[in-house]
Amino acid sequence: MPGTRTSCANSSTVPLGCDGGRPATWRRTARGPPGSFRSSMNGKYCGAVMTQVIVLNGGSSSGKSGIVRCLQAVLPDPWLAFGVDTLVEAMPSSMIEITPGGEVNVGPEFRRLEAAWTEGIAAMARAGARVIIDEVFLGGPASQERWQKALGGLDVLWVGVRCDSEVAAGREVARGDRVTGMAALQAEAVHQGIFYDLEVDTTHAESMACARTIADRVT
Amino acid sequence: MPGTRTSCANSSTVPLGCDGGRPATWRRTARGPPGSFRSSMNGKYCGAVMTQVIVLNGGSSSGKSGIVRCLQAVLPDPWLAFGVDTLVEAMPSSMIEITPGGEVNVGPEFRRLEAAWTEGIAAMARAGARVIIDEVFLGGPASQERWQKALGGLDVLWVGVRCDSEVAAGREVARGDRVTGMAALQAEAVHQGIFYDLEVDTTHAESMACARTIADRVT
Amino acid sequence: MPGTRTSCANSSTVPLGCDGGRPATWRRTARGPPGSFRSSMNGKYCGAVMTQVIVLNGGSSSGKSGIVRCLQAVLPDPWLAFGVDTLVEAMPSSMIEITPGGEVNVGPEFRRLEAAWTEGIAAMARAGARVIIDEVFLGGPASQERWQKALGGLDVLWVGVRCDSEVAAGREVARGDRVTGMAALQAEAVHQGIFYDLEVDTTHAESMACARTIADRVT
Amino acid sequence: MPGTRTSCANSSTVPLGCDGGRPATWRRTARGPPGSFRSSMNGKYCGAVMTQVIVLNGGSSSGKSGIVRCLQAVLPDPWLAFGVDTLVEAMPSSMIEITPGGEVNVGPEFRRLEAAWTEGIAAMARAGARVIIDEVFLGGPASQERWQKALGGLDVLWVGVRCDSEVAAGREVARGDRVTGMAALQAEAVHQGIFYDLEVDTTHAESMACARTIADRVT
Repeated sequence: MPGTRTSCANSSTVPLGCDGGRPATWRRTARGPPGSFRSSMNGKYCGAVMTQVIVLNGGSSSGKSGIVRCLQAVLPDPWLAFGVDTLVEAMPSSMIEITPGGEVNVGPEFRRLEAAWTEGIAAMARAGARVIIDEVFLGGPASQERWQKALGGLDVLWVGVRCDSEVAAGREVARGDRVTGMAALQAEAVHQGIFYDLEVDTTHAESMACARTIADRVT
Repeated sequence: MPGTRTSCANSSTVPLGCDGGRPATWRRTARGPPGSFRSSMNGKYCGAVMTQVIVLNGGSSSGKSGIVRCLQAVLPDPWLAFGVDTLVEAMPSSMIEITPGGEVNVGPEFRRLEAAWTEGIAAMARAGARVIIDEVFLGGPASQERWQKALGGLDVLWVGVRCDSEVAAGREVARGDRVTGMAALQAEAVHQGIFYDLEVDTTHAESMACARTIADRVT
Repeated sequence: MPGTRTSCANSSTVPLGCDGGRPATWRRTARGPPGSFRSSMNGKYCGAVMTQVIVLNGGSSSGKSGIVRCLQAVLPDPWLAFGVDTLVEAMPSSMIEITPGGEVNVGPEFRRLEAAWTEGIAAMARAGARVIIDEVFLGGPASQERWQKALGGLDVLWVGVRCDSEVAAGREVARGDRVTGMAALQAEAVHQGIFYDLEVDTTHAESMACARTIADRVT
Repeated sequence: MPGTRTSCANSSTVPLGCDGGRPATWRRTARGPPGSFRSSMNGKYCGAVMTQVIVLNGGSSSGKSGIVRCLQAVLPDPWLAFGVDTLVEAMPSSMIEITPGGEVNVGPEFRRLEAAWTEGIAAMARAGARVIIDEVFLGGPASQERWQKALGGLDVLWVGVRCDSEVAAGREVARGDRVTGMAALQAEAVHQGIFYDLEVDTTHAESMACARTIADRVT
C-alpha cells in the first residue's frame, strides 16, 4: 500500500546509517489526524529510515512558500525545494490558463510534461538530494497518486498546509501578485480526499512555527 | 506642535469642498490610543478635512507592504502608494549599502536626493492624488520631521506598524529576499520618539484587518 | 514657448552656478534632427543651463530601461529614474487594462492620478534632483505636452528611443514578461508628432552605446 | 570540424517517427573536436534521431535566457527549460557565494546537490520531456563531462552562446540585476575546452535570430 508506514517494535536497537552526519533522531510513531495514514518504511532496517522527500500540499496563498524557506533555514541538511511554480516557469508561457476568476486550466500537453517533471524530481531524491515539494493538488487524490507512484520506495512526509479561506483571500490581496479568487477557490478543495502524515494551519500560526513543527517530524 | 490635530466644536456645520467628487464624510473626532497625539487641522474650515496622505512607518518585514496593498483594495478612492523602496529603486545602484548584518548605510548624496523625492511626493498630494507612503524611519524623529515639513498643509494620517521582533525575524526568513538581521534591528528602533494617530500591530493581526482599521480612520 | 532653446551669443562669459560641483561644461549648440525643436533656456544667465530632466520616449521593448540604467552608471552625478512603470506599480491593480493583443487602456481616474504624478516628478526636479523619465507617449503629442507643461522652466533633454518594429517584437519574446503584440503596436505609433533633441536607435546599437550618446548631450 | 554532424546518404528514405512515441534511436557517428566525444545516435536508422536535450553554455549576460525563451516560442513542441539559476533558487540561500568582483564560489555540498539535480533533469528527458538546459560551465570541461555522463544515451545538441566580453559587460549594466564584473570574467573562460555542435554569437545577432539558427538544427 503506497505510503503506509509500518510501526516497528524494536526500532531502538537498529543502527541509523544516514549520510550527512545528522544526529540520529529515532522515528516517532507517527499518528496523523483521524483519516490520515502512516507512511511506508523504506529503510533496510526498521527504524533506520531518513525522510527523503517532504511534500507540502495547500491552496494558493496558504503560506507554503514561506514554510518552505523556513524549513530550508531550520533543517540541518541542505534541502532542494521545487514547486508547481518551478514547473510552470520552466514551460513555454502558453501552457497554463488562469481565468479572471482564478481557475487554473491545463491541457494534455501540460500533464505530459508534468509527468516527466515528477519522474525527474523523484530521480533527484533517489540520487541523494533531500527534496521539498510545494504542491497544489488541483486534481485531488489523482494528483497525490501521481506523486506517490513516482516517489515509490522513497521515504516521504506528506504535509497538509491549511489556511482559513477568508484569511487566505486576504493574504492574496496583500501579496498583490496573484489572481484574486484563486485562494478562496482552492482553500478547501485541494485537501479533499488527501491523506497526510501531518497537517499545519497557517491561519493563526507563523510560517516559522509551522516549519519547526514539520522539521520535528523529519527523520 | 507638529502634527497636532485640534478638535472642533462645530465641525458638523461646515461644508466639505473636496476635489474628486468623493461623498462628504464628516470627520470623526479622532482619538488615538493612549499616548498618541491628534493631528493638525489642515482644511480651510474646521471639520472639512479629507485625509490626503497616509504615512505608514515600521521596520523591515513588519508587514507594511501587505497593508498598503490591502488599503488600496479597500479604500473607495484610488490611492497612489510609494515607499522608500521606490526611492531606492529610482537611484543608481551604488547609493545605499546594506551590511551583512542588516544595517542600512546611506551617504549625503542619498539624503539630498531623498529630500527632493520627499518634496515631489508632497507635490503629488497637493496636486490632488491621495498618497500612501510606506516608510522606515531609520533616522528616528528627524525622519518624521522631514516628512512633516514637506507635507505641511496637508492632512496626514500617521500610522505606526508594529510587529514583535522575533515574529518579524521569522517572516524575514519566510520571505527569503531580505538580508537576515534587518527585521530584528529595526523592529523597535524605528518607533523611538515617533508620534502616531494610530498604531496597528501585525504580530497577531492580518494585513487586511490592519488595513480596515486604518481605512476606518481615513476621512 | 515651452521647450524652446534660445541661442546665446555671449554664453562663454557667463559663470555656471550649478550645485553638485560638476565641472562646467558649456552647452553645445544643440541642433536636433529636421523637424525637432530647441529647448528653452532655464538658467538665470544665458549659457549657464544644466540639464535637469532627461525624457526618454519609446515603445515597449525598445530598450529604454536598459539605457536608463546605463545612463545612471555613466553620468557623473546621481540621477533619479522614474517611468510609467513606476506610476502603474504605485496605483491600485485595477487602474490599467492590457488587452490580449497588447493594447493599453486607461480611464479618467488614471489620467487624474497621472497628472498629479507628473506634477510631483517635476517638483522633484525643481527641488534639485536630476531626473530621468522613461515614458511611452501612447497619447501622442498630447502626452508630450502634458510633460512639457509640467516641466516648464526646467532644462529638459527630449530623447526618442527608436527600435525597428520586428526587432522589438523579437525582444518582447526574449524578455518573456510582456504581453505579445505590445512592442509592434507601439514601435512607430509613440513617435508620431513628437519632437526630440536627440534620437537613438537600439536596432543595431547597444544600450550602453546609446547611453553614451545621450550622456554627451547632457550639460 | 567541431561539432559537425555527419550527413547520411540515405536518410531521406528513412521514415522519421518523432514526437509523441519517442522510438528508440541509434547512436549517431558524431565527431567532435580532438578530445571530444561522440554523441549518441538515437534513431533506429540514420536520420531518424530526435533531439531530446539542448544544452546552452555561455557566460553571464551573454543572452542565454533570451534565446531560451525564443526557442520555446519557435520550436513546434513544448520544451521545458531549466538552468543553473533554477538550481540556485531551489537551494537554501547560503549555498553559493558571489564576491563583489563577480566570482562565483561553491562548496562540496553545492556539488553534491548539483549532481543529484543533473541526474533528475536527465531523468525528465528520459521520461519524455524535451529539455533545454541553460548553463554556465564555470568548471570548464569537467562541467561538460558531468552533463555528458548524466545525459548518456540521450540525443543532445551542444550549443555555445558567445558574446564579446565588452558588450556582455555593457549588457550587465543595462540589466541592473547582476554583480558587475561577472560578465567579463566569464565571457571567454566558460568556453575553454568545451566542444559544441553549434555556436551562436549574440554580439551582433538578436536572441530570436540565434534561436532560429538553433531551432534549425533541432531534429
